[in-house]
Amino acid sequence: MLDPNTLKNKHIPPATIKRLSTYVQVLEDLARDNIKVISSVPLAEACGVQSSQIRKDLAYFGEFGIRGVGYHVKSLIQAITSALGIDREWPMILVGVGNLGRAMINHLSANAQGFVIKAIFDCDPFKIGEKVHGFEVYPTQEIKHIVDALGIVIGIITTPPERAQRAAQFLIDAGITSILNFAKARLKVPETVQVEYVDFFRHMYALAFKHIQAGRHDL
Amino acid sequence: MLDPNTLKNKHIPPATIKRLSTYVQVLEDLARDNIKVISSVPLAEACGVQSSQIRKDLAYFGEFGIRGVGYHVKSLIQAITSALGIDREWPMILVGVGNLGRAMINHLSANAQGFVIKAIFDCDPFKIGEKVHGFEVYPTQEIKHIVDALGIVIGIITTPPERAQRAAQFLIDAGITSILNFAKARLKVPETVQVEYVDFFRHMYALAFKHIQAGRHDL
Repeated sequence: MLDPNTLKNKHIPPATIKRLSTYVQVLEDLARDNIKVISSVPLAEACGVQSSQIRKDLAYFGEFGIRGVGYHVKSLIQAITSALGIDREWPMILVGVGNLGRAMINHLSANAQGFVIKAIFDCDPFKIGEKVHGFEVYPTQEIKHIVDALGIVIGIITTPPERAQRAAQFLIDAGITSILNFAKARLKVPETVQVEYVDFFRHMYALAFKHIQAGRHDL
Repeated sequence: MLDPNTLKNKHIPPATIKRLSTYVQVLEDLARDNIKVISSVPLAEACGVQSSQIRKDLAYFGEFGIRGVGYHVKSLIQAITSALGIDREWPMILVGVGNLGRAMINHLSANAQGFVIKAIFDCDPFKIGEKVHGFEVYPTQEIKHIVDALGIVIGIITTPPERAQRAAQFLIDAGITSILNFAKARLKVPETVQVEYVDFFRHMYALAFKHIQAGRHDL
């Protein structure tokens, strides 16, 4: 029942997928604290959602939890990651070896969970050949070659905003259809290409606005 | 009409606030390309939403756009940032000067937009006193003192997951009510404290799952 192939025909809302990632994070916190079983109410509280929401989200993937007992923490992590297809390896490349790129290379190496950077690229001739956390920087012209050779699935963009579209074009021309964009720019891509935007400022805007609304703006 | 004080009594959905940040990003892309005016249909397309959604979101803040002409790019950026209260300074501190912390210090210094890091902290005695991008690393015990002295509003956590809760406690004890959490851990906070989670894996999970659903998983 957790074979990802059976999920192809189901429409699972994007919001559910995003909440599942929160559930995994909370469950991993619990596992780290050596908690083996949790019931749905405290789990929901820790995730910041209603317990009915958790039950509804998990129901897309099968039957979980034991009535009167709760969820077995490690089994649920395994079930969710398996259902999401994130319990296998997802080979990635990164384009843009500036400060943000270097941090992400290091951060993702330390917290891989199947999302593994295989090669890194930059268009700056002075960076080509440099070693960064064990990776040699390749020229962006080599992207297609490496994507084909290593079966890369996800491309990460960490360039300055004005170079993000060019980086995206290299990825798309290499056949990449999944892009994680850290650059502060929107990308124009064909419909077959998925882009996830990591936008730090979006979160800061939200904090600032809530702060004003709470009437705490006493600067 | 754009005085943030008048917005206190309006309930503006969090999803609207987050979309406004996308609109600002798209408008800044347009401004960089020297585009002065844009009509709602191409603006909506670039933002990945319906044009009716943009009109609805902007309506919370007043009347924008000129019928038959569109939106004046720079005025709309100014109006949205002013409405969100992000056209003033938001002093921040950062806790956790590891690789991710260093990258964020540098990244946010280069793209401040009012969100300005004023001081950085770590609990590692070997890091105290070190200079990072022009900031001296202070011990976490100094957080309350600095928050009071500099009127800090937002606390950023970039610690390893197992130290995030402790960092949050230092911030909360110092009176901080707005936290941006990059650590891969959920935080337990009082109801008066807002936490925004920046979760890279959430985006990678979404890409991986969409990739499987699109039937492209041919690894």
